[in-house]
Amino acid sequence: MIDWGLSDAAVAALVRGAGRDGDSVAERDEAMARALWSVVVEPGDGDAGLLLGAVGAVEAARILLERPAPISLATATGGELAGSAAERALGRWLPRRRQADLVRALESAARTRARLLAPSDEEWPAALDDLGEHAPLALWSRGDATLLARTSVALVGARAATGYGEHIAMELAAGAVGNEVAVVSGGAYGIDGMAHRAVLASGGDTVAVLAGGVDRLYPAGHEALLTRITEQGAIVSEAPCGTAPTRWRFLQRNRLIAALADATVVVEAGRRSGALSTARHALALGRPVGVVPGPVTSASSAGCHVMLREHPVVCVTTVAEQMELVRGGMVEGGAGASVDDDDPSRGAPDPDGMVTRVLDALRPRRAQSVAELARAVGESSSRIRGVLGVLALEDRAVSKGDGWVRAAAPRGTRTGFTAEE
Amino acid sequence: MIDWGLSDAAVAALVRGAGRDGDSVAERDEAMARALWSVVVEPGDGDAGLLLGAVGAVEAARILLERPAPISLATATGGELAGSAAERALGRWLPRRRQADLVRALESAARTRARLLAPSDEEWPAALDDLGEHAPLALWSRGDATLLARTSVALVGARAATGYGEHIAMELAAGAVGNEVAVVSGGAYGIDGMAHRAVLASGGDTVAVLAGGVDRLYPAGHEALLTRITEQGAIVSEAPCGTAPTRWRFLQRNRLIAALADATVVVEAGRRSGALSTARHALALGRPVGVVPGPVTSASSAGCHVMLREHPVVCVTTVAEQMELVRGGMVEGGAGASVDDDDPSRGAPDPDGMVTRVLDALRPRRAQSVAELARAVGESSSRIRGVLGVLALEDRAVSKGDGWVRAAAPRGTRTGFTAEE
Repeated sequence: MIDWGLSDAAVAALVRGAGRDGDSVAERDEAMARALWSVVVEPGDGDAGLLLGAVGAVEAARILLERPAPISLATATGGELAGSAAERALGRWLPRRRQADLVRALESAARTRARLLAPSDEEWPAALDDLGEHAPLALWSRGDATLLARTSVALVGARAATGYGEHIAMELAAGAVGNEVAVVSGGAYGIDGMAHRAVLASGGDTVAVLAGGVDRLYPAGHEALLTRITEQGAIVSEAPCGTAPTRWRFLQRNRLIAALADATVVVEAGRRSGALSTARHALALGRPVGVVPGPVTSASSAGCHVMLREHPVVCVTTVAEQMELVRGGMVEGGAGASVDDDDPSRGAPDPDGMVTRVLDALRPRRAQSVAELARAVGESSSRIRGVLGVLALEDRAVSKGDGWVRAAAPRGTRTGFTAEE
Repeated sequence: MIDWGLSDAAVAALVRGAGRDGDSVAERDEAMARALWSVVVEPGDGDAGLLLGAVGAVEAARILLERPAPISLATATGGELAGSAAERALGRWLPRRRQADLVRALESAARTRARLLAPSDEEWPAALDDLGEHAPLALWSRGDATLLARTSVALVGARAATGYGEHIAMELAAGAVGNEVAVVSGGAYGIDGMAHRAVLASGGDTVAVLAGGVDRLYPAGHEALLTRITEQGAIVSEAPCGTAPTRWRFLQRNRLIAALADATVVVEAGRRSGALSTARHALALGRPVGVVPGPVTSASSAGCHVMLREHPVVCVTTVAEQMELVRGGMVEGGAGASVDDDDPSRGAPDPDGMVTRVLDALRPRRAQSVAELARAVGESSSRIRGVLGVLALEDRAVSKGDGWVRAAAPRGTRTGFTAEE
């Protein structure tokens, strides 16, 4: 049992206020310890991750609260966090070890009905394990936390989105809902907001990952939207309640988006868009990344095109291609499959182009003899006869009198030669 | 000496009419033989390529004209073209071995001032060797044939181009001219025509590769444009004068475009565009292929996006990126280099984000002590002091009283934190 400097009843109330069972000492200490570490460290602190991984949150909290000499910290972690690294870590953590901040975070969570999640919870998304020691030590959520573990796609992009980008974001978000996949995004203006809105409009599931505390709905212009997400979806952050977003926290938030989603799609992004950092995090985690191209004349797509040029990302143009990325397989009848259906240079076996060449030579009305066709095509008569036989079977050539004509084009194909396309 | 069934004077006149020196018997026979093979075969006939490669055009013409038994053809090529393959090849060629067609092609060349080019000619582009036995046996050109060997980019795309595609084609063509690179295209409506026009307008060099004879300017609506190209650039075809374009010849023409150019860029292409066949030929030849993305809502860019998804092509959005492709290297200060200049998650050494985090914590007006900053950032005071030192050197932080403030932002950078982008 840890001395939190508060009465047992006060601790129990704080823990229950953060949506946790405060009945047992163990649960109370675990919840308080997770909350403390969330308050003490900045997102992505790998030293804290190593320490908690080695000794657990409660023991780590005891070490922090009892302010031991650095040497005992090194011993506790079995040497993984030793010497100067341990000293440096304690140097960072000790100035933030303030009871008032911890209590404020928990009280604000209670006020906004935010829930504190720990890695041992059922709702904790296993996908975050891929972050290793940089995984969050705790999460704070509002809304339906079970959504965090759903199959999902992250739709991210520029705040300075164009009508084009917003249209695509809407289509992809609605398509994800149609395929029963949740949509993760950052709650920002532009692409993020449009993706969230389209999901809500389609009655689907969406998760907004915030850089600051979930008690502060940032940006202010999205307060109504984010409130709706707390009601119909989920909002989550690794920063404790009361925390303001900072540039660093935005960058770390992006890694959470990348880690939570099964695939990330960048809808529109300028050259310096934060969406590109999300994409890079996803690539670093081995998650598939899709990028929607746009006009090269649009600055809002320039970052997407840089990704397409320089990173192992996939060009995504349809909902089907988005789903292919999420599911990691090839979609039957998808874009890739249908491309060459009518391309005479590939497709059905026509290795030396004879079918194309005989079709070129056949006239729709005037019948030509095999000898005439052979000369026109530049092929022997016997070969021409063979090809005509195949074409006749396919209803593409018809014998007429003592010659051959081209059959009327079947539906859906080109009628005769006009130009190269 | 071969008996062409014509007087020596008539042969000499035909050869000179095709822009060749007809003084010696050897030159006359070589020219007539190349012209004959051009008339007899369809583009890309590998059997003819093997035969001419083995015995030369004149000896191959003699074999064809003397109509030997298949067995002697097999002997002549040292077994490379033997047995049934030889029989099949002769079966294709013999019906086309007509003196009248040969004379007509040469007369039409003379009328339109077209020149017959043979592989031994100085103007013959060495790049065509990459086609192996499928290389053309002869070329027919109008205009400045020396352009064929120039460093060049192929700009190809849909006939059904949009204003967007035409704009990009124009930009890339003008950019090629600015970099002293010739532009190869197919003379078609849409992207091809726009590329040729932009080159002519910029006083650059352009080559139109036609599927039919160079005496027939196809398509008819481009007669004026193609005529201008014969005057300021070059038009070339492997089909002899008098030949109509066919679908097969268009596909084979595409392989010539791909082989002639140092790189191919697809500007806009529908899913079935012939431009995609040019791109595939270029890939098969190991030539770099660039693809310009467009709105995913545009059918005229759908083929480009398929290429980006499924083939080892490069996303091209600027003239610099086009030139990088042509020159095969990285362009200094090109798009790739400038991307992350201001991205705090990469760029200047800031591995643990301390610079970003301290900048986040600094206020523009209210000075904060090192201890305050250490707590805000979640880092030890000594570390904060080190970072402040670096920031002071870079004029990004200023000491004020007994604390620190953020310096006014230098030109060209963001002024303070507002949101994640």
